[in-house]
Amino acid sequence: MNIAVIGMGTMGAPMARNLLKAGHSVVVHNRTREREEPLVADGASRADTPAAAASGVEVVLTCVSDTPDVQRVLLDPKIGVINGLTSGSLIIDCSSIAPAATREIAATFADKGIGFVDAPVSGGSEGAIKGTLAIMCGGTVDNFARATPLLEVLGSKVTHIGDVGAGQVAKVANQIVIAGTYLALGEALTLAAKAGADPQKVVEAIGGGVAGSWIMQNRSSNVLNDTYPLGFRTRLHRKDLGIALDTARTFEVPVPVASLVATIEDGLIAQGLGDEDMSNLARFIRRGAGVPDGPLSAGDS
Amino acid sequence: MNIAVIGMGTMGAPMARNLLKAGHSVVVHNRTREREEPLVADGASRADTPAAAASGVEVVLTCVSDTPDVQRVLLDPKIGVINGLTSGSLIIDCSSIAPAATREIAATFADKGIGFVDAPVSGGSEGAIKGTLAIMCGGTVDNFARATPLLEVLGSKVTHIGDVGAGQVAKVANQIVIAGTYLALGEALTLAAKAGADPQKVVEAIGGGVAGSWIMQNRSSNVLNDTYPLGFRTRLHRKDLGIALDTARTFEVPVPVASLVATIEDGLIAQGLGDEDMSNLARFIRRGAGVPDGPLSAGDS
Repeated sequence: MNIAVIGMGTMGAPMARNLLKAGHSVVVHNRTREREEPLVADGASRADTPAAAASGVEVVLTCVSDTPDVQRVLLDPKIGVINGLTSGSLIIDCSSIAPAATREIAATFADKGIGFVDAPVSGGSEGAIKGTLAIMCGGTVDNFARATPLLEVLGSKVTHIGDVGAGQVAKVANQIVIAGTYLALGEALTLAAKAGADPQKVVEAIGGGVAGSWIMQNRSSNVLNDTYPLGFRTRLHRKDLGIALDTARTFEVPVPVASLVATIEDGLIAQGLGDEDMSNLARFIRRGAGVPDGPLSAGDS
Repeated sequence: MNIAVIGMGTMGAPMARNLLKAGHSVVVHNRTREREEPLVADGASRADTPAAAASGVEVVLTCVSDTPDVQRVLLDPKIGVINGLTSGSLIIDCSSIAPAATREIAATFADKGIGFVDAPVSGGSEGAIKGTLAIMCGGTVDNFARATPLLEVLGSKVTHIGDVGAGQVAKVANQIVIAGTYLALGEALTLAAKAGADPQKVVEAIGGGVAGSWIMQNRSSNVLNDTYPLGFRTRLHRKDLGIALDTARTFEVPVPVASLVATIEDGLIAQGLGDEDMSNLARFIRRGAGVPDGPLSAGDS
């Protein structure tokens, strides 16, 4: 299949590479053009603009940073995909952006006979490289069916949530759940240590029961060691929580935990910690509690 | 072994029964005396006061509601265990109470040559009946070793966290982690539904990844169905968060999620919902969002 991939970031580049490996013909574009070069070495062709990339392909896959970026690469009256793509083709947007904007963009393309599937991913750069992403999809049954063979190259768990935008809504839900779980873990282990219990033993004791989670299993060592290797950047999670808060306001849902974590992440970013893994929510608690940096241990103060 | 069990509540009664089944000689006491009767039918003897129950036994096991209850049954100058128990014996407190009070009580008994192990449990009434509780223990290595054969009758996972009080600290950590996880799940699924996604599909899509947890696996159906069968009462979790907040203040640790959930649970209790399962934290969000009671579905408003 002829596919354009727009956005050669941490996620987009390995996704394009996996499509090449699967035998597809791929044309790439990135705003910072030199990021296209490694993909060209892998067999991709390149295009000067999103519009040029989209010209003549059956599918455009976008993976860029935020809502305005998607709007620009798809809808810009000069360089946007909308100037290159023809009726009958399909857009798959793997960016994490606002559900409401997604629905507007999809409607614009629907008017031109172009399908749209929102397909935000989770699983990080490792998942993108290995092709083991979880992909949450919104779109019509037909468009989802057309996207599925490609998405199955990129991810190991592809779920059709519902109509267009529903994939983005699921991603928002994911980011809210992990926000509360990470912050609570940070509070619990900091308090355990300061109150005189070995936090490692606490993890062992409670991790197999009601308090157990992927995050407890895979990220409590970050909190115990006070090291926050990526993972998923606090700065990017804050961006996603911005979408969550906007969506919550639009749909009138109080989201106190999401609001709280967003403001804490603003503090972490202000401290220069935005590029650590988001398990560093624990840092905000430990610094607030006057615990010196370094591995967390019983009686810390 | 001769064992006194004080407190014939939802947890204490089945624990006493399991000790009887394991062949121990058990004397029981409960403030509301008729609650002793079913245990007498199972082979226990009964005593008029905690002091009388403790007279001549090697181990006293307490399982009562809160810090003042433990202080009363153990230390009351007239009826307390301290008047009946002799040097060389051991107290095992399975109640969930303040770590600081636990350390004071243990010190009082240590002065009389009486050992103390704090051993709060998790796993609910079902775990107490089946003998599959998780038990988090604080105490000296020797006292923990003495308590272990009995605790292994009551639970399937017995962990020695550290010195006396450390079991209670682990329980506090457990209650903070689940607080944040439950609230975040309630926010995420309510928002997903109002923003137009099928919340059941969202659970399927995100539950196997970073957002996955015991709570997601086992309690998201409560949120989806808007039914909150026990489980673990909101009222009791609020009591435990009271201990968490006191402990956090004592040890100077900011615990914003625990504080937030405590105040939300006060609201739920005020609405008459304190005896539902604590997964009803989602109710606070959905009612706040104007979602009518009943199963949660896409486009709810």
